[in-house]
Amino acid sequence: MQRRLMAEWLGTFSLLATVIGSGIMAERLADGNVAIALLGNTIPTGAILVVLITVFGPLSGAHFNPAVTLCFALRREIPPLEGMLYVLAQICGGIIGVLAAHVMFDNPLIDPSATIRSGVGQWTGEFIATFGLIGTILGTLKARPDAVPMAVGLYITAAYWFTSSTSFANPAVTIARGFSNTFAGINPANIAAFIAVQLLAAVLATGFFHWLLKEGTSDEL
Amino acid sequence: MQRRLMAEWLGTFSLLATVIGSGIMAERLADGNVAIALLGNTIPTGAILVVLITVFGPLSGAHFNPAVTLCFALRREIPPLEGMLYVLAQICGGIIGVLAAHVMFDNPLIDPSATIRSGVGQWTGEFIATFGLIGTILGTLKARPDAVPMAVGLYITAAYWFTSSTSFANPAVTIARGFSNTFAGINPANIAAFIAVQLLAAVLATGFFHWLLKEGTSDEL
Amino acid sequence: MQRRLMAEWLGTFSLLATVIGSGIMAERLADGNVAIALLGNTIPTGAILVVLITVFGPLSGAHFNPAVTLCFALRREIPPLEGMLYVLAQICGGIIGVLAAHVMFDNPLIDPSATIRSGVGQWTGEFIATFGLIGTILGTLKARPDAVPMAVGLYITAAYWFTSSTSFANPAVTIARGFSNTFAGINPANIAAFIAVQLLAAVLATGFFHWLLKEGTSDEL
Amino acid sequence: MQRRLMAEWLGTFSLLATVIGSGIMAERLADGNVAIALLGNTIPTGAILVVLITVFGPLSGAHFNPAVTLCFALRREIPPLEGMLYVLAQICGGIIGVLAAHVMFDNPLIDPSATIRSGVGQWTGEFIATFGLIGTILGTLKARPDAVPMAVGLYITAAYWFTSSTSFANPAVTIARGFSNTFAGINPANIAAFIAVQLLAAVLATGFFHWLLKEGTSDEL
Repeated sequence: MQRRLMAEWLGTFSLLATVIGSGIMAERLADGNVAIALLGNTIPTGAILVVLITVFGPLSGAHFNPAVTLCFALRREIPPLEGMLYVLAQICGGIIGVLAAHVMFDNPLIDPSATIRSGVGQWTGEFIATFGLIGTILGTLKARPDAVPMAVGLYITAAYWFTSSTSFANPAVTIARGFSNTFAGINPANIAAFIAVQLLAAVLATGFFHWLLKEGTSDEL
Repeated sequence: MQRRLMAEWLGTFSLLATVIGSGIMAERLADGNVAIALLGNTIPTGAILVVLITVFGPLSGAHFNPAVTLCFALRREIPPLEGMLYVLAQICGGIIGVLAAHVMFDNPLIDPSATIRSGVGQWTGEFIATFGLIGTILGTLKARPDAVPMAVGLYITAAYWFTSSTSFANPAVTIARGFSNTFAGINPANIAAFIAVQLLAAVLATGFFHWLLKEGTSDEL
Repeated sequence: MQRRLMAEWLGTFSLLATVIGSGIMAERLADGNVAIALLGNTIPTGAILVVLITVFGPLSGAHFNPAVTLCFALRREIPPLEGMLYVLAQICGGIIGVLAAHVMFDNPLIDPSATIRSGVGQWTGEFIATFGLIGTILGTLKARPDAVPMAVGLYITAAYWFTSSTSFANPAVTIARGFSNTFAGINPANIAAFIAVQLLAAVLATGFFHWLLKEGTSDEL
Repeated sequence: MQRRLMAEWLGTFSLLATVIGSGIMAERLADGNVAIALLGNTIPTGAILVVLITVFGPLSGAHFNPAVTLCFALRREIPPLEGMLYVLAQICGGIIGVLAAHVMFDNPLIDPSATIRSGVGQWTGEFIATFGLIGTILGTLKARPDAVPMAVGLYITAAYWFTSSTSFANPAVTIARGFSNTFAGINPANIAAFIAVQLLAAVLATGFFHWLLKEGTSDEL
């Protein structure tokens, strides 16, 4: 158990160190061209997700995301208490990951973000992004379990660009990014709405993909 | 059957939300450098195709493309009526995907494109792009079926750049992109010619690769 | 036999249509930033190589390159006459691929390149690039044959950047690129020296990797 | 034995030729936009690592890195004397690889770097980068050995961006990069501190991941 929690902690730590660290690096070097900065933020994030899910998948399932843990709890594949400990480990890991990025880039340790991320467009984006992330995980687990690390990495690579919010799709990531007034930050006042939409999408996606992916019976005429 | 149609609908929806959404994001951020915008449109499109074909392949075959459905109908691998329902699901899914991208980016919902895409160069490009897409699918299905998702994603990544039309190669995508006056749009008046070339290429490629990929007999001296 | 030659022809055609087509697209859109243009040329070239080698590998071995055919002829894995037909198919396919790119982008059909690519630095680059390509192919064929398409695609992705010549490493590609006064062109007067270096590297690499990769005997103390 | 040392030599040679060569190419073409230059340095480095580890993994284990050799020596998976020969081969290979890049790009052969890379932020970055590299290797070797080449390539792709030092994480690479006053160089006066941090991280990571990845016993309640 303690090693599984360590896996969730260290995985979410690494994910946030990458998201925030590459965001700082990319913004500093991109000379004001935000598309180039977003490329420099997207490629490392997608890459590290493949690595982290490959390494920690056999240990803890490699959730790194309370919305994913909620999905597996609803599917009764993780007990509720263990799920709550997972979520705690994820939130702690994410916040410490942000601090580590700040140390590496000589940024103030705690530095609440001023970036407004709000409105129907962005909430729709978070809904679609989280719904799709759950579908990617459940669908790939069924179709080809060894492809899950690559599928999640590529999904987030795409989602950084096709949603107006650049796809947080993860409550632990959302909370942690509130602590960083850098490229990937989010104003703490906007966090609650993001998390509400993410959890709603996770619940609905869990039900929808349960139906879509169930073994075919009389349906398959 | 209904789950297979849902897979075609949702896959084409996701494809178009990505194509249009990442096109809007990329163009807004790229500061007028169109090559950077096209990179920001290419990478998400290739990435999401790998994910969608991995997840929906076992359900519906993951066509998301009337030209591909036509190819499999000619090969008698899908009955004609089912093929027509697939095409309907693809066209509906694509259009709704465009609307979803517009909601996410606070764009007008319906916004016909003014981008002229026409002329012998672009039609040649669409012919080559579609011919190559059919070859990629049939060839990889024969050589290594588990590599189809990656092969299609990488093929489209390349084709966005080696054709002057940025490779639509898909009638459902072509129709849907008519509804979006953004980076990836196409003037509705140019749609019919694109589709005609795509379907012609699909028919010829189906025959050509049937010959090229058939099991060797006396030919293999 | 005719289908294998068609595979070599069509593969080299597709490779050159991609190299030249994406080069034109990238240069036109990159607004003078040559590094962005090279990214837009590199990513499609690496991607299409993975696809082409996956599809045509089981048919013809997917050489698309006289230096590779020479290597396999030296290893007696292809008869000399068949090898010469392969080379003819590769050269024809490459040149027609360039013309196809010119049609797609409304460029003059035949358009000899004025780009000087010469000197000790570039020849050293071509030597290293070709030596490494042969090593990549022979080494991956031995270590993990199903990874050859990905390994070659990634190798060329790297070699476009780590050599001063952007790594032609292929006599058929070198000849074909002489016909295109665009981003990826080479002055016809510089072709002979490039090909001489490429073939020399192929011969030496064939011998060197034969030694390095042979089954261990008393050497493995 | 001599072939394994040749594999370490040639692999580290190729790695450094790519790191330095692509750095020179990227910086020359990027027109002052350092984020684009770093993209043009990152993508080739990640790509060549996948190739090199695929090809040389079965021969020598594909360390190319004294910190990795130290880790395997601590795990008693390589005898100390052999490990020292590995390290010698890596350092020689790296330096000659830098010289090869200089020849290709008409740079002075020996050209000590003036780039200052120092301070707590960068040392923290090197610690995290090396710790994560060891974890990536040990974790993927346990979870899915055939994925090690891809995992290491993607890890370094990410680490170039999420650390302020652009992740050397390798004493042989650090020494070699001291010889190049180009994009990827490091002032020789800063090398010792980098190496000390890298070796410390390697030792601690070896112990930590030994605990984290050991087979579960009573811990797995």
